Amino acid sequence: MSERVWTAALVIIGDEILSGRTADRNIGQVAVWLNAQGIRLAEVRVVADREEAIVEAVNALRARNDYCFTTGGIGPTHDDITVDAIAAALGVPVVIHPQARATLEAYYGKRGQEVTDARLRMARVPEGAELIPNRMSGAPGIRIGNLFILAGVPHIAAGMLDALTGTLEGGLPLLSRTIGCWVAESEVADLLREAERSHEGVAIGSYPLFREGRTGANFVIRATSQAVVDACGDAVAAGLASAGFEAVEGGI
Amino acid sequence: MSERVWTAALVIIGDEILSGRTADRNIGQVAVWLNAQGIRLAEVRVVADREEAIVEAVNALRARNDYCFTTGGIGPTHDDITVDAIAAALGVPVVIHPQARATLEAYYGKRGQEVTDARLRMARVPEGAELIPNRMSGAPGIRIGNLFILAGVPHIAAGMLDALTGTLEGGLPLLSRTIGCWVAESEVADLLREAERSHEGVAIGSYPLFREGRTGANFVIRATSQAVVDACGDAVAAGLASAGFEAVEGGI
Repeated sequence: MSERVWTAALVIIGDEILSGRTADRNIGQVAVWLNAQGIRLAEVRVVADREEAIVEAVNALRARNDYCFTTGGIGPTHDDITVDAIAAALGVPVVIHPQARATLEAYYGKRGQEVTDARLRMARVPEGAELIPNRMSGAPGIRIGNLFILAGVPHIAAGMLDALTGTLEGGLPLLSRTIGCWVAESEVADLLREAERSHEGVAIGSYPLFREGRTGANFVIRATSQAVVDACGDAVAAGLASAGFEAVEGGI
Repeated sequence: MSERVWTAALVIIGDEILSGRTADRNIGQVAVWLNAQGIRLAEVRVVADREEAIVEAVNALRARNDYCFTTGGIGPTHDDITVDAIAAALGVPVVIHPQARATLEAYYGKRGQEVTDARLRMARVPEGAELIPNRMSGAPGIRIGNLFILAGVPHIAAGMLDALTGTLEGGLPLLSRTIGCWVAESEVADLLREAERSHEGVAIGSYPLFREGRTGANFVIRATSQAVVDACGDAVAAGLASAGFEAVEGGI
């Protein structure tokens, strides 16, 4: 019997990632947060700040995943086109969200500033959307259907994820156990394959590393059942020991 | 007149990125390397270690880009399925490449070790492929058609890119100039939009930041012509100055 697996996709919108100017930090934090909700990050796309590219990615991924997240492109400048692109993807108009406008008025009012046209851009949403609170700055995130539109700045995206914690339906989180070993992974490939094969529901990832002139690898055993993770991990550790290698619990 | 733009896509193959275990470092290095070759990284996908996912991504992206790179999944273990998946995508069989076998025999022979079946997996290529030298470890990269199959370990991937330097046809590299300013980007949104509009071939990215309680942004002006980048950058700097803000050349 296999339980229902909930999946999500992530679309990272940003020329700055594709140019190499900015190193992405959203994949990792979205992945870890999703797993805690019992949802697997199944696929990621990084697309340019172009409407057709965003529309294509969002429409492909929202159709085949339970949830689809985007990061980036929700600020006040001309290159922030995520809301327009997603409205186009959904075939709905862009409207000013009254609560978002009120939030911006309160945010800038406290600072003695006006809500200019540029700032009001941050209250624009695809029609039918709800807001995701943003405690860090004026512009809220947006939820519409199974789409979640987050900021690109990692700590603001993190705040939006925090606001969503516990609100999404998910399944069992994926558990993992990492066993490291100073061995070339080619020496233990058969052992790993057999351990995975003989424990149902387990996936073992093998990640080589090269450090201080030595070759090693970390073996990550993943499953939704702690008992299965434990049993498979014990089998890997025992197999390494009987082949004469030291298994390092937690990884090297 | 617009010059021919050469594009590439990148497919990152790896459950370890999707689980959040490993932070990707290949997008940035591939992006920067491509730009030096006069090729733009146009899109990236991160896919799981599953054949259908790899086939779908590779076939979509190789068709609409001049080049398609992959990273990950070319080692000796059971989760290394990139070669099989790409052979399936291309509809060709997997064969042992004689030169790859010889390289592995030399590599392990020097260390007094055998080329086991697991190690010989690293000599498997889609039929018709050429090798990309790997000076770091035994397993070579693979080129077939417009596909370039690289290692997932960043420093090994870097060595393979290095081996490819200067061998790919490209166009003009994208040049950039960064101007930073301690200003909320919403205050200068009109200025940026107008500067981009009035300089043909320019794209301006606006990247907000929040540091030490202050709000600022970096404006990145990109074009293939240095004269155009300079002129647009001067216009942005002058616009900021006349609005009473200090423009910081190089960014904040």
